[in-house]
Amino acid sequence: MDENPTLTIIGRVESRLTEPGLAPKQGSEGAPDAWLVLRDDVRDGLANLAPGDEIIVLTWLHRADRAVLHVHPRDDPSRPLTGVFSTRSADRPNPIGLHRVRVLAVDGVRVHVDGLEAVHGTPILDLKPTLSATER
Amino acid sequence: MDENPTLTIIGRVESRLTEPGLAPKQGSEGAPDAWLVLRDDVRDGLANLAPGDEIIVLTWLHRADRAVLHVHPRDDPSRPLTGVFSTRSADRPNPIGLHRVRVLAVDGVRVHVDGLEAVHGTPILDLKPTLSATER
Repeated sequence: MDENPTLTIIGRVESRLTEPGLAPKQGSEGAPDAWLVLRDDVRDGLANLAPGDEIIVLTWLHRADRAVLHVHPRDDPSRPLTGVFSTRSADRPNPIGLHRVRVLAVDGVRVHVDGLEAVHGTPILDLKPTLSATER
Repeated sequence: MDENPTLTIIGRVESRLTEPGLAPKQGSEGAPDAWLVLRDDVRDGLANLAPGDEIIVLTWLHRADRAVLHVHPRDDPSRPLTGVFSTRSADRPNPIGLHRVRVLAVDGVRVHVDGLEAVHGTPILDLKPTLSATER
């Protein structure tokens, strides 16, 4: 069994969010719409994606500190240090972001989505349909 | 920027599910309880995890076919081939499983959870708290 799987970056986020410190913590907190620009070699995987679909975008939070196991939630020093597995901090051993968004448009390998808190250039790993109307 | 990030396996699933073909497609479909057995070097990340917590377990679906971009949903040949990004198929470029479960008990680095459809030995990548009571 592969002990250290290697991810394939299937695309990048195009967003006007460029400064991580200014990005909302969650898409529900005022994040802008953005484009998911996928690689041409995964185009077939998009065959059935349509405007209105609710999807979970998986990203690789490439600026994260993978050695961190305790954080102050939401970067608030007044909050006690908390084990990362009880937080949504980007800093964790495998910094995979989960972002629930709605598809606004699909143009070839470019997918326009609403409320995405990931910054410009964030690597994209996967898109999955949601299993419930309210999951994130 | 890292073009091909490498994942760190932080633990393994201990489950009586051993045959992928017999595993439910989703945890809500009669999956058994299971143990998440984490590595001792990530123990600090579990500091605040408690029974009753609703979490999302991220796994690496190591038996998946990463070259697949179209599947018959739920392995049902009567369903038309569908782009993988509109399905929850394990076969996709980055076979990361998302499993919403409830923590039943925490014993050191062993976390007992309900309804987990992952088979015995599945690598664990991350645990995150849910952001809504019904997400998966």
